[in-house]
Amino acid sequence: MVDDLEKGLEGVLVAESSLSSVDGDAGRLIYRGYPIEDLARGASYEEVVYLLWHGELPTAEELDSFTASLNEERAVDDDVLETVERLADAGEQPMAALRTAVSMLSAYEPETDTEPEDLEATLRKGRRITAKLPTVLAAFERYRLGEEPVDPDPDLGLAANFLYMLTGEEPDELAAETFDQALTLHADHGLNASTFTSMVIGSTMADIYSAVTGGIGALSGPLHGGANQDVMEVLMEIDESDLDHREWIEQAIEEGRRIPGYGHRVYNVKDPRAKILEERSEELAEQGESKWYDYTTTIEQYLVEEQGLAEKGIAPNVDFYSGSVYYQLGIPIDLYTPIFAMSRVSGWIAHVIEYQEDNRLIRPRARYTGPEDEEFVPLEER
Amino acid sequence: MVDDLEKGLEGVLVAESSLSSVDGDAGRLIYRGYPIEDLARGASYEEVVYLLWHGELPTAEELDSFTASLNEERAVDDDVLETVERLADAGEQPMAALRTAVSMLSAYEPETDTEPEDLEATLRKGRRITAKLPTVLAAFERYRLGEEPVDPDPDLGLAANFLYMLTGEEPDELAAETFDQALTLHADHGLNASTFTSMVIGSTMADIYSAVTGGIGALSGPLHGGANQDVMEVLMEIDESDLDHREWIEQAIEEGRRIPGYGHRVYNVKDPRAKILEERSEELAEQGESKWYDYTTTIEQYLVEEQGLAEKGIAPNVDFYSGSVYYQLGIPIDLYTPIFAMSRVSGWIAHVIEYQEDNRLIRPRARYTGPEDEEFVPLEER
Repeated sequence: MVDDLEKGLEGVLVAESSLSSVDGDAGRLIYRGYPIEDLARGASYEEVVYLLWHGELPTAEELDSFTASLNEERAVDDDVLETVERLADAGEQPMAALRTAVSMLSAYEPETDTEPEDLEATLRKGRRITAKLPTVLAAFERYRLGEEPVDPDPDLGLAANFLYMLTGEEPDELAAETFDQALTLHADHGLNASTFTSMVIGSTMADIYSAVTGGIGALSGPLHGGANQDVMEVLMEIDESDLDHREWIEQAIEEGRRIPGYGHRVYNVKDPRAKILEERSEELAEQGESKWYDYTTTIEQYLVEEQGLAEKGIAPNVDFYSGSVYYQLGIPIDLYTPIFAMSRVSGWIAHVIEYQEDNRLIRPRARYTGPEDEEFVPLEER
Repeated sequence: MVDDLEKGLEGVLVAESSLSSVDGDAGRLIYRGYPIEDLARGASYEEVVYLLWHGELPTAEELDSFTASLNEERAVDDDVLETVERLADAGEQPMAALRTAVSMLSAYEPETDTEPEDLEATLRKGRRITAKLPTVLAAFERYRLGEEPVDPDPDLGLAANFLYMLTGEEPDELAAETFDQALTLHADHGLNASTFTSMVIGSTMADIYSAVTGGIGALSGPLHGGANQDVMEVLMEIDESDLDHREWIEQAIEEGRRIPGYGHRVYNVKDPRAKILEERSEELAEQGESKWYDYTTTIEQYLVEEQGLAEKGIAPNVDFYSGSVYYQLGIPIDLYTPIFAMSRVSGWIAHVIEYQEDNRLIRPRARYTGPEDEEFVPLEER
């Protein structure tokens, strides 16, 4: 029995995993041994999901069959869509709507009689969730706009199809590729709070719908998934300000404001995912509006070089560049965290199944600090 | 940094808590210093919830106002009820239906503009969830039976009102009191997997709907909340068997069958909650059918005394007696775990708020065991 209080469980090893590894000092992230840069640039999101779930990159034939099995699962029961419409009409937050919709999908799961230990069945269910999540999310956005959902296009990959379902228009190649890379970059990242939530739920041998629903809940927290949205709000504040962006950041720091998208529990140097997204942001800037890219690079230069954040081990994280990239792709700001969920769901599923293969119920302890011997007094005498 | 693998986090202290404490060797459970026996026998479930949430037992006046504030929150938006009806029609599992319905409640939460750090607001939201959860659960059961939901009766306490909403008939005093005690016994129990799930989600400063939805998901797992249902299924198997119940248990043990409701990660002696429920089961047996009580006591006597389980630190846990008690109260077997959620929700909320008062994001680590340096090969060359 350990008697130290491990609040936040920082550094505590709770499982073995061969899914992803972060070297926070080197700024290196690998999925099953492959550097994130190679995967983002050389593989589609579907290949990465296959890698996470099956342990190796697919051959062309395996990928075809895997992609087909995902694409045919995109449709969502009308009951779920009608509930999504109600949620949109009620003004529900997108992450909460996603949590409810994904939870509800389980009622329409075709394989209901499988045993919790049948991890092949769990993976098939996980595949259905991964395929349907973009559909419910896009439908939620369409309903909010007073539009009907757009049916998925089986000829488009997961990333391009999502952008298509949002707008009804097929995205151009740069947009589709950029979004696909963003999904790859967010697919897994060790035992972050949402992945760990899914694992704790999975450790009770609860079904994968419960594990994913819990993961969405955890990701919705402002200390976890919400920072890319915060970054974009800062960029918009700069845009609307009378100050030049260089002046804005100087004044913000003088006023002691915290700039979102900087610092990470795990990284002491620049997040490798941020580097890739920065490149894409630059490309998108060349094609369209350049100001968002300018704002981010100015902030980074000022904070890192002039304020010396780098020496304190504080550097831009993935959220710092994903915000402006999503904005440049025309995605509504409050969908940034749900998009994170759309990608990370593949990691949640991979971790749950990996943990359940050699399962042990996760049940820690609290140090009791309350009174020991209170004498009970009946209500009449209180 | 701890280098030992703490799989299952057994014995690892992740927080301080003044909510409940279990002495597994003495078979003692306290909520805020009060022995569970005193609370179960002397206080209503509402008093216990007040104790958990506010740190002390209420005066009569405080209890009146607290009860009124709970009772006025029982009604549920028609949108949610219609989704619950769809879930019932689709044959959804009760725990999954509860997970979806509670998640959906957030869309109709009146206080949407509060800050995550406003824990008073979180508590008010938690109160609404606690009040509405029995309503959605009873509605689900009614819809499954092809009946309309029964409106809550504001003159009945939470326990009696739930039984009333299930059947449309007011329960007798013994039934209401027994069910109220069962809720008290299940309200909190240290950092079990569902409570810990809620805390991990809460540690991201996600909202209380996310934390509770995650807790329901974790509790649905067969390694956590499902055992009282398993116990009842064993008792029914005995009832349908040609063997006398004494013979049945002898044969089952000879065949190496595992009897559910025995053993607990935390207790080495008889669970104090099981003792109280055993008494209620006996009382219910005197009023009605005695066979279920007879089966349980015969099994306990055989296992504990003749098979020497007690010396191995294996004893009846709370699930062993709650199953037959709920059955004697006429509650459908697959609602036993949802009823557990109906009670434990108060503990989840208390732990989330207690943790958020001095919050730290919960993010452990995994020991990476995968390959380190895989060379990326493009799809065309695989």
